[in-house]
Amino acid sequence: MDFKTKLQKTIARNNSLLCVGLDPDSASIEGALDVVSFNKRVVDRTADFVCAYKPNSAFFESYGLDGPKFLKLTIGYIKGKYPDIPIILDAKRADIGSSSEMYARQVFDFLDADAVTLNPYLGEDSLEPFLKRKEKGAIILCRTSNPSAKDLQDIKADGEPLFIKVAKKVVAWDKKYKNLLMVVGATYPNDLKKIREIAPQMTFLVPGIGEQGGDLENTLKNGLKGDGTGLIISATRSIIYAQDPRSAAKKLRDEINKHR
Amino acid sequence: MDFKTKLQKTIARNNSLLCVGLDPDSASIEGALDVVSFNKRVVDRTADFVCAYKPNSAFFESYGLDGPKFLKLTIGYIKGKYPDIPIILDAKRADIGSSSEMYARQVFDFLDADAVTLNPYLGEDSLEPFLKRKEKGAIILCRTSNPSAKDLQDIKADGEPLFIKVAKKVVAWDKKYKNLLMVVGATYPNDLKKIREIAPQMTFLVPGIGEQGGDLENTLKNGLKGDGTGLIISATRSIIYAQDPRSAAKKLRDEINKHR
Repeated sequence: MDFKTKLQKTIARNNSLLCVGLDPDSASIEGALDVVSFNKRVVDRTADFVCAYKPNSAFFESYGLDGPKFLKLTIGYIKGKYPDIPIILDAKRADIGSSSEMYARQVFDFLDADAVTLNPYLGEDSLEPFLKRKEKGAIILCRTSNPSAKDLQDIKADGEPLFIKVAKKVVAWDKKYKNLLMVVGATYPNDLKKIREIAPQMTFLVPGIGEQGGDLENTLKNGLKGDGTGLIISATRSIIYAQDPRSAAKKLRDEINKHR
Repeated sequence: MDFKTKLQKTIARNNSLLCVGLDPDSASIEGALDVVSFNKRVVDRTADFVCAYKPNSAFFESYGLDGPKFLKLTIGYIKGKYPDIPIILDAKRADIGSSSEMYARQVFDFLDADAVTLNPYLGEDSLEPFLKRKEKGAIILCRTSNPSAKDLQDIKADGEPLFIKVAKKVVAWDKKYKNLLMVVGATYPNDLKKIREIAPQMTFLVPGIGEQGGDLENTLKNGLKGDGTGLIISATRSIIYAQDPRSAAKKLRDEINKHR
């Protein structure tokens, strides 16, 4: 089953657009739990309320020698116990073709992720080793959630900002490869509206709700497709470090659904 | 000693602008050599003729569980035996700040690289965790060597291509942080000339000589600073898979020096 189909089925089954980010920071993990046990506990408590999990490669890599092991064990646990829930590796990769091919092998063959986030700055041939994996999802950065997103993404080109040009390219690439999505931060709900106009059928991964101050109501109003899908709302710290991750995930899932 | 100083000293000592890329591909490594032994052999044979080594994270990551070990052992070997030669990790990272902080820890604290390549699409705050490490080098993608570089980098903004805007931003960031360099592909020597005009004092990491067909003579003519430095010419497959890596490195080092 390809990534988009797997995602749609889990959205329907759990009635959820919530994606829980897995950014295990040893400084924030309480007690004697190891990283993998911490992730397993978060997953077990939230699996009824999510449409996807999003492990963040940066946090795993910071564990040095054990990084790939912790990441593979985390993904393997989800795949074994909750095989219907798709896994997005947040890695923001891109390099020239032969190097991107190596990254694709690591992400899809070794780690067995269902989708990956990618950076568009090097253009189509840098993404192609990921795009050609038809059963996998390729999620391209368009409008990121951080304040400095403006540095490049707002540069005006023919009267429109660069992120609009990128959105148009992603739509064109998706016509060819069929397996693309975009990252659009919740911190820019007006930009989300413009991108939705350009890409009426595409699904967006939306970080920035919670700590980063994204506006959930306007994000949903401006980003949802007519059928109440088309958005993957990502939340991390507010769920995984909550006193009760199960309640936190259910509450945010339900809050999202109020506006669908 | 900071990265720029270390680089200048090794350029002078080995009379070389050549950087050897370490992209160990198991499909190309002959005989029974393991990855780390292969890298050690390349390093031992080329260390007299280089100004830097550039291990490529993608190739190491493709080894799965062993990736960080192979990379750390390779870097550790160079640091132990050839402590004067700087190590550039080619990783093309960038993420929102808290994630970039984790990448910076992995690259600089765990792996002990001297510099890293970075992607500018997310803007200054995504680079800041690297830039604030004053003793390390931050090498920002400006004009990449691949054919699809044009997809985003040639988009016209106020009458000039995006990569020119990026070059100007890198120059501005370098005024603030002092530890920046840029990636400029040898496959676009005319663009290199324009970037040199914008950044007369900056050092560029230049991939694309060799397999990618970059033009060495025009690259040097258009990119060198008045003092015969300012470029790090990167070559990989033509050296590491040569019958005789020592001769191949010496020959390319000398060919570069003919035009300095």
